[in-house]
Amino acid sequence: MEKNDRLAERNRGFFRAKKLLVLNVVSSPGSGKTTFIRETAAKLGAKLRVGVIVGDLATDNDAAKLRTAGIPVVQITTGTVCHLDAEMVSKAAAQLDLDKLDVLVIENVGNLVCPAEYDLGEDLRVVLLSTTEGEDKPLKYPPMFHSANVAVVTKSDLASAAGFDREQALANLRRVSHHAEVFELSAKTGEGMAAWVDFLTKQRGAVNGK
Amino acid sequence: MEKNDRLAERNRGFFRAKKLLVLNVVSSPGSGKTTFIRETAAKLGAKLRVGVIVGDLATDNDAAKLRTAGIPVVQITTGTVCHLDAEMVSKAAAQLDLDKLDVLVIENVGNLVCPAEYDLGEDLRVVLLSTTEGEDKPLKYPPMFHSANVAVVTKSDLASAAGFDREQALANLRRVSHHAEVFELSAKTGEGMAAWVDFLTKQRGAVNGK
Repeated sequence: MEKNDRLAERNRGFFRAKKLLVLNVVSSPGSGKTTFIRETAAKLGAKLRVGVIVGDLATDNDAAKLRTAGIPVVQITTGTVCHLDAEMVSKAAAQLDLDKLDVLVIENVGNLVCPAEYDLGEDLRVVLLSTTEGEDKPLKYPPMFHSANVAVVTKSDLASAAGFDREQALANLRRVSHHAEVFELSAKTGEGMAAWVDFLTKQRGAVNGK
Repeated sequence: MEKNDRLAERNRGFFRAKKLLVLNVVSSPGSGKTTFIRETAAKLGAKLRVGVIVGDLATDNDAAKLRTAGIPVVQITTGTVCHLDAEMVSKAAAQLDLDKLDVLVIENVGNLVCPAEYDLGEDLRVVLLSTTEGEDKPLKYPPMFHSANVAVVTKSDLASAAGFDREQALANLRRVSHHAEVFELSAKTGEGMAAWVDFLTKQRGAVNGK
């Protein structure tokens, strides 16, 4: 763990020198990470170029989906390991042409527990909470939600069908992720994506100024 | 791990002597484990008495929900540990009046990775896949889906809103969980619960005959 923390800081320094804004996107399986990342890249368009590192136990389905959308992507297959670590990210990043990117998105393994303890060298840890998972998740997985800089409520288009209690969810997020920026959106319909993309653009500006 | 496997077999022997059918219910966070267990207990009613051991990193929300429904329940709070183990289950089971139960349901921590490697001494490992998570989960989390004896597709009432590809999901389950019994249901609406409850009743009969 100590070793991972050191390698993560090395990644952080490397990414800073490359003027990359780096996101570590974490969530339960099926919260919509891949669609969220694909639509974020599409909305940023030519303004900010996005590359992705995808972690999965098995399959390169997500990587294939992103590649089809024209996004440079590297797949990490972890086998039985429940999280990415800084060394995996460092090796995967070497396979991307980082000088042609502005934003590097790391799609972590779908897991609300293990990735919480592994710094990857990101600028922002972004935790997704889909409306279909229920509003209690921040309280039940506090290490992950507490460690996040940004919390994104996804699948807002399904909130009503799923009986999602929005007020309770936001209250739970305020309680556990009190320092986090919160966004609510549907990557599928595009609702709420503009505010998120504006935020990212500003964040990238801040990194670029360093 | 070796130690866990031995303790799990001790649990298995103990539960068998008590003529209990023991289920280890695993899934992503938010797949509907608690509602599924509560409705299963309600449908089994007075015919088969159900007790529950609930694992969570934090909070006793799920235990409280089950207790409110009149179900005997013991909470295990794991802190940062991403799975239950055989020793935790053994200690928790000692807090239940097992002679008054026919079915013991262990609700594992919401995680599609870590619990796969930990035998708890269950008769059946039951993996839940909610329609809102997407049909690709069996391919992306093969150790868990492969280790399951039963796969339950939950939240069938949301399938259409979520754009769930049922045929693809069943094909993926057949590929990874080829030996597993598959059920499709909505604990919320009750659709499909009868077949699942019939199956459980037969399984408990088989355990009782041993």
